[in-house]
Amino acid sequence: MANDKHATQLLLAFISLALAALVDGASTTAQFRFYMHDTVTASAGSPATAVRVVRGAAPLPGDPVNRFGDLYVIDDPLTEGPSAASPVVGRAQGFYLFASRSDPALLLCADMVFTSGKHNGSAVAVLARDAILDDVRELPVIGGTGGFRGAAGYGLLRTHAFNASTNNAVLRIDMHLSV
Amino acid sequence: MANDKHATQLLLAFISLALAALVDGASTTAQFRFYMHDTVTASAGSPATAVRVVRGAAPLPGDPVNRFGDLYVIDDPLTEGPSAASPVVGRAQGFYLFASRSDPALLLCADMVFTSGKHNGSAVAVLARDAILDDVRELPVIGGTGGFRGAAGYGLLRTHAFNASTNNAVLRIDMHLSV
Amino acid sequence: MANDKHATQLLLAFISLALAALVDGASTTAQFRFYMHDTVTASAGSPATAVRVVRGAAPLPGDPVNRFGDLYVIDDPLTEGPSAASPVVGRAQGFYLFASRSDPALLLCADMVFTSGKHNGSAVAVLARDAILDDVRELPVIGGTGGFRGAAGYGLLRTHAFNASTNNAVLRIDMHLSV
Repeated sequence: MANDKHATQLLLAFISLALAALVDGASTTAQFRFYMHDTVTASAGSPATAVRVVRGAAPLPGDPVNRFGDLYVIDDPLTEGPSAASPVVGRAQGFYLFASRSDPALLLCADMVFTSGKHNGSAVAVLARDAILDDVRELPVIGGTGGFRGAAGYGLLRTHAFNASTNNAVLRIDMHLSV
Repeated sequence: MANDKHATQLLLAFISLALAALVDGASTTAQFRFYMHDTVTASAGSPATAVRVVRGAAPLPGDPVNRFGDLYVIDDPLTEGPSAASPVVGRAQGFYLFASRSDPALLLCADMVFTSGKHNGSAVAVLARDAILDDVRELPVIGGTGGFRGAAGYGLLRTHAFNASTNNAVLRIDMHLSV
Repeated sequence: MANDKHATQLLLAFISLALAALVDGASTTAQFRFYMHDTVTASAGSPATAVRVVRGAAPLPGDPVNRFGDLYVIDDPLTEGPSAASPVVGRAQGFYLFASRSDPALLLCADMVFTSGKHNGSAVAVLARDAILDDVRELPVIGGTGGFRGAAGYGLLRTHAFNASTNNAVLRIDMHLSV
C-alpha cells in the first residue's frame, strides 16, 4: 500500500513536470516598441529609403501620385524613439505594393532586422495589408530568425507623423511576440 | 490517509483541467468557401482586377501570352457564390508572379480581407505556388489578423471557370483554419 | 478503497496517454540537405534560372552590377549534391529583391517544391533576408504543403560556390522541419 501510494505520487510529479514544460513552452513573450522612418523624398543629409521601382498603370481615385501596382523597395531605419536622431535599432528591408484599386492600401512585406540593443542579431518578417489611413494596422509576424527563431505574434502599426507634400512618414510599431 | 486521497484527487482534477485547456487551445476551427474573381481583361462594367506591371523576358514554352517573370498586381473581389453578381465578402490583394520557366505556375502572395459576412474585419495572408492547370492547389495560410489573429491552416484552390481568350478566371477557395 | 485505487490508476493512465499525444504531436521532424543552383548568366546547355525583371535606381556602394531595387524572378533547380549533374530533387520558384541600400543583401521569397525523392509532392515556402556574403543565413519556413502541410522550422543557407564574373552561385541548404 505504501509502495502504491509512492508510485502514484511519483507519477503525478512526472505528469506535473511534463505539463509545466508544455505550458511553459508557449509562454515566453517579448513586447517592444520602435519607429520606422519611411523616406520617399530625399532631403539634405536624408537619402530616400523607399524607392519606387515599378510604376502601376491605373491611377488611384483622388490620388494624383500613387497608382494601383506601384512597387516600392524599402530599407527604412528603425529607431528607439520617433526622432530621426534617435538611436538606430535596426532596418526594415523589403517592399510595399499598392494593391488596392480604390484605397491607399499596401501589401507590406519586410524583414525587420535588429542591429543593436536588446534584440541585436534577431529579425522578424511581416506580411500584411497596410491601409495607410487607418489608425491601427495589424502586422502578422510570419517568420523569425536569431533569438526570434520560431517566433509568432504580431505588430501594431500606427502613423506617428506624415508629410503630405513629401509622402515621408514616421511609423510607430508595437511588437508582440511569443518565442 | 483520507487527506492523502483528497490531495491526490484535487491534483488530478487540476491536471485534467490543464490538459483540457491545452487540447482545447488548438481546437477552434473555421471552414468556409468563397470565390475569387480574377479579371485580367476588362469588359463593360467589369474593370480589370489583375494588372500586369512587370513584363518578363523569357516566353513560356507554348504560351504566346505569358512570360517567366510577368508580375501582376491583384485586387480581386471575393464572393459567396461563383457568380460575379453574388454578394461580395471581401477582396484578395497582392500579386502573382510567373515563377516557372516551363509551366504556367505562379507564386501567389495575397492578403484576403473579409469585408462583410461572418468574417468581416478579419484577414488571412497566403503564399503559395499556384500551378494553374492543376485540379487542386494548396495555399498555406501564413498570417491572420482580426478574428484570424494567429490562425494556421490552408486553403484549397480550384479553377471554377476559365476563359482562354480573356484569361479571366473564377476560382473556388475552401479555407480550413484553426484559430 | 480498491475501487478508488483502480479509478485513480485508470485516470492516470488516460492522462499519461493524453500527455504523450500532446508531446508527440510536436515531435515529428525532418532534416535534409540539398543544393540550389542560381544561374544568372546562361552558358551552353545551362539556361539562366534567375532573371532580372526590375532594375533598381540607386547603385550599391562598390558594386558595379547590382542596384537597390533590382528584382530577380527565379526558378532554380534543387539537387541532391553540389554538382549541377547531381539528381534533381526539386525547384525553388519565387524572387529575390535587392533590399539593402548599403550591402549585397536580398529579400528572398520562394516556394521550394520537391519533385522527386523522399519529399516528392511536398513544398516549403521561405521568406528571409539573405545577406549573401554571410557564412550562414537563416531561412524561416513560413508555409508548407503536401507532406509538409503545417510544417514549421528553418533552413540554413550557405554559399557552396560563387563565380564573381558570372554571378552564378551554388547554395547549400540544410532544412530543419517539424511537421
